[in-house]
Parts: sequence; C-alpha cells; structure tokens
Amino acid sequence: MASTRDQAAQVRLANPHLQDDRHDVLYHIGLDSRKHDFKAMFGDTKVVCMGGSSNRMKRLAEDLVAELGIRLPTGQGLVNVIPNTDRYVMYKAGPIVCVNHGMGIPSISILLHELAKLMSLAGATGVTFIRLGTCGGLGLEPGTVCISSRSLNSQLQSHLSQFILGQPVQREAVFDPDLARELLQLASGLNIEAVSAVTLCTSDFYEEQGRTDGAICEFSMEQRNEFLQRAFEAGVRNIEMESLALAAITHRLGIRAACMAVTLLDRFKQDQVQLDHSLIAQFEGRMLRILAAFIRSRNICG
Amino acid sequence: MASTRDQAAQVRLANPHLQDDRHDVLYHIGLDSRKHDFKAMFGDTKVVCMGGSSNRMKRLAEDLVAELGIRLPTGQGLVNVIPNTDRYVMYKAGPIVCVNHGMGIPSISILLHELAKLMSLAGATGVTFIRLGTCGGLGLEPGTVCISSRSLNSQLQSHLSQFILGQPVQREAVFDPDLARELLQLASGLNIEAVSAVTLCTSDFYEEQGRTDGAICEFSMEQRNEFLQRAFEAGVRNIEMESLALAAITHRLGIRAACMAVTLLDRFKQDQVQLDHSLIAQFEGRMLRILAAFIRSRNICG
Repeated sequence: MASTRDQAAQVRLANPHLQDDRHDVLYHIGLDSRKHDFKAMFGDTKVVCMGGSSNRMKRLAEDLVAELGIRLPTGQGLVNVIPNTDRYVMYKAGPIVCVNHGMGIPSISILLHELAKLMSLAGATGVTFIRLGTCGGLGLEPGTVCISSRSLNSQLQSHLSQFILGQPVQREAVFDPDLARELLQLASGLNIEAVSAVTLCTSDFYEEQGRTDGAICEFSMEQRNEFLQRAFEAGVRNIEMESLALAAITHRLGIRAACMAVTLLDRFKQDQVQLDHSLIAQFEGRMLRILAAFIRSRNICG
Repeated sequence: MASTRDQAAQVRLANPHLQDDRHDVLYHIGLDSRKHDFKAMFGDTKVVCMGGSSNRMKRLAEDLVAELGIRLPTGQGLVNVIPNTDRYVMYKAGPIVCVNHGMGIPSISILLHELAKLMSLAGATGVTFIRLGTCGGLGLEPGTVCISSRSLNSQLQSHLSQFILGQPVQREAVFDPDLARELLQLASGLNIEAVSAVTLCTSDFYEEQGRTDGAICEFSMEQRNEFLQRAFEAGVRNIEMESLALAAITHRLGIRAACMAVTLLDRFKQDQVQLDHSLIAQFEGRMLRILAAFIRSRNICG
C-alpha cells in the first residue's frame, strides 16, 4: 500500500531550466497555462490511465464512471478535455484521467513529458500512471494479463537507449515492484489469469518482433524461433511497443507506474492477430476489472 | 518525370515468406483480404499522402477533392475507408489516398509495412508516397517548406538503426532525388519558400531534439546550442520524427517517396511552438498547393 508520504508527494520534474512560475505550452496535448487553469482542471488527479487507442480510452473512462459510480459535473458528462488537438484524447472522471498514447516509444514519450509537466504544474499529489495495453504473449494463453516487472529493449537489455545531443544515454526501465505485486494480487482475487512478466518493447511491430509477415523480412523461420526462445529464456513473457519509455521516464521522475497488457496471441504459434473485436473487448475487460479494484482500494472516488 | 517503366511498376515486397495468393490481415489499418476487395478498393492508387494528425489528413483529402475537381462515388462522399480501427484514418479520393501516421518512427513504420502490403496485394502501379508534416527549422523563417534529400538519425548518421532479432541492421535513409527536385521546382513556380533539406529525425521530441523544456533535461543551454550548430553544419535544416523510417523503408522497397515538412519555429531561437492554429493552417496550405500541382502534373485525376 502507498504510504502517507507517497500520497502527499508531488510530481517533481528533472529539469533545472524550468521555473516554477513559468507559463508553459504543452503543445501535443493542446494545453496552455495562460489559457487553462491546470490546478482547477487537474489538481485532484490520482490515477492516470493510458492506452494506445483513442476509442478504447473513451470506453475505459465510461466504464470506470459506471463501475465506480463516479459523479460527473452536472450537465457536462464525459468530455474530451483536450479538444484543441487531435493527436491525443483525454477524459477526466473525478480523480481519474484516461488518455491515449498512440503507438510506439516516441508517441508515449511525448505524452509522458507533457503529462509530467501538467501534473507538476497542477500540483497533483500521489499520482500513479497505469498503462493498459494489448500485446503478443510468449507461451501464454491468449487473454492472459501481463503485469510488467521491467522492460527490455530490442537488444534484450533492461534500459531505454537514447541519443541525447548525439550522445548515448541509457535509463533503467523498471516498474514499481509494490504496485506490480498489488495488481497481481487484485487479479488473483478476481480469478483473472495474470502473470508477472519481463516485457520486450520494440520500435517496430514486424521485423524487431520477429514477425515473418511484414513488407520486409530478411530472416528465416529458424532464426525467428531462436530469437523468441532467447527472449523467453531472458524472462520475456510479452511483447509490445511502449513499456520501455513508460518505465524509464517514470522511474527517472520517481512517478509510481505500472504496465498491464493482455495477450492477443501466443507468438510461439503465430504472427498475425486474428481475434475478433468482441473477444479483444472481453480480454480488455479483465484489465478494467483489475484497474477498478485498484482504484477502489485507494478510496479516492469520494 | 516518371518514366513509363516507373508508372507500370508494382510495389514489390522484400519478404520471401509471403505467398502472392495469401490471405492477409493488415491489423492496424483494420483491413482483411478475406473481407475486403483490395484490388477494387485500392488498385487504382497513384499517390499516398500521409501526415501525423487524423483531422489534418481529412482536411487534406477534402481540399484535394475541391482543388483537383475529383469526382467521388455518387451518394458516398469522402468517408474513412478503414472504420474498423481507430489507430489510423484513411480517405480515398480517386487515385489519391490520404492517411495519418501518428507520431514517431514506430507508428509510421507499422503503417508503411501495412500500406506496402496493401498496395502490393491491390496490384497498384506507379505509386508515390508523400509525407506532409510539420517540423522545427534551423536558420529558416517559420513557414518554410523543407523537402528532404535524406534523413539523419539522432547520432547524425544517414541511416535507420534497428535491432532485428537482437542484431543491428542499418538501412540507408535517402529520398528519391528526382521527386525531391520536381517538388522544389513546383514550389518555386508557385512562389512558395521551399528548400532542399537534410532532415534530422529523432525518437523523442524533447531531449533528443535538444529542447530545454521537457520534463527531463540534463544538459546546459551551451550544450544544446552546440548540438544544433553541429547538426546545422551536417546540413540539417529541419527536425521531425518520422522521415527516417519513411526514407529507409521506401528506399528498401523501391517505392518512390518524398518528405515535405513546413517549419513552425526556428530552433536556433526557441523551443516552444507558440503559433496559433490559423497560422499553422496557412503554412500547411503551402504544402497542399505543391502537392496539388504535383498531382496535376501527373494527369492521374481523369
């Protein structure tokens, strides 16, 4: 459980260039501190939920409102609170923010920088970031919820590699172990199949993930299988495209974060996702239930 | 000008695993060869236009219809032809496809793999891919259209670096020189300020681009300025987040491609984008005019 200290902790940025009383334009989420009252809009935020798709994040917000009995402002309902951009959508229900992050490390990285600045300027305390995604599994039944302990890059190393001003910078990609354990326990209590996973995070869906069905493929089926086996032996149980940035950036900033992702296929058996939408929605519902149980345990929804 | 041979050329995939008569699920664009007739839907495609934002791509399609007098199917109008997904949107007007690619190399990379497979399965011939984006400039007036000759990664090297099955793979990131020259000439004929640019393409908007206003910043203003100067001396005139994958993947597949991006600010002077939407729309209009002139020159719209 989060300590009282954690609950009072503000998001601290790691940037000595920024003045506390600055004006700030959060370009990609279309918010401007001169035009929007960040404290009034976001000061009470406790949980930021994120996932790739905009429709899915809207449905998640709607489902949380229903599931948790969150009261929305009279006459307003659930609205996209960042209508000035179409790069992301964001819904807020009580202390819960639901926002989509698009696909890939760069897209979630832009969002994380701007969300951290937003939460800092809003003075929000005790904020937890949780990603709810879909992924490929390794040796798992489709529909298994993977809760990441840490994330590996395409070289199977547990750090995000960047080139900042042309120089290599490596940042450790680990998730909060207490939060991961708590989510696993909640899943267990709900009889939802969930596992602790090392997560492989790539910058490409086809070649870097060892798929043989992309427009380009220069390796053999044997090399593909050997790579997936090597990843499995390194502890990898699921593969997706955002967890590395989520882990590295939140760890660097001291923000408590988790990554849940439900497997849509077993990559040992196939490359193409061929589930129908209703089954995917059913699988995603498992993450919703874990998330709702987590939020309930925090007593933050009045 | 494209030769007769170019105009008849089909998109050839670089993947010996794929059978020509296969069924294929293009997961992220929500198309399935068992449910959709790719040849009927996309066989006549000649130009694929892409940009980051979904609304912008819709407006682009609307503007091209008006500008070029393209006739849409009776009673149908301009519709998103990939309604089964919300990851991307795609509009088709005669032989022109407009599709958004989201932000960053992974997001455009997924799209490029699936578009190349789509064009190949549809039997489309003489297809050109053109990205229309926004970017930061170096030493250029905001509103300048940069037409990329090649793209550099965050280490200022002219290739896309990937780790495929854990092994490093580098692919040259160059654009078709004839197409770039043609677009520059069209811009000149329209009195639009356009330059040939080496383009820096990063996987992060804040730190890798040398911004001092992200949630994390570990370098000094002097180091930032030195990096931007070094990039400038390497020929860089604009900075964005997708051109490297566009150049590398299309070059590998032999697809003719170009990257146009209009500068929203001069990075030698500032980090934050503070233009209002109407000015950005005006700048984007310059790329529309160049694109429309290019399409007119091809006599492909009946």
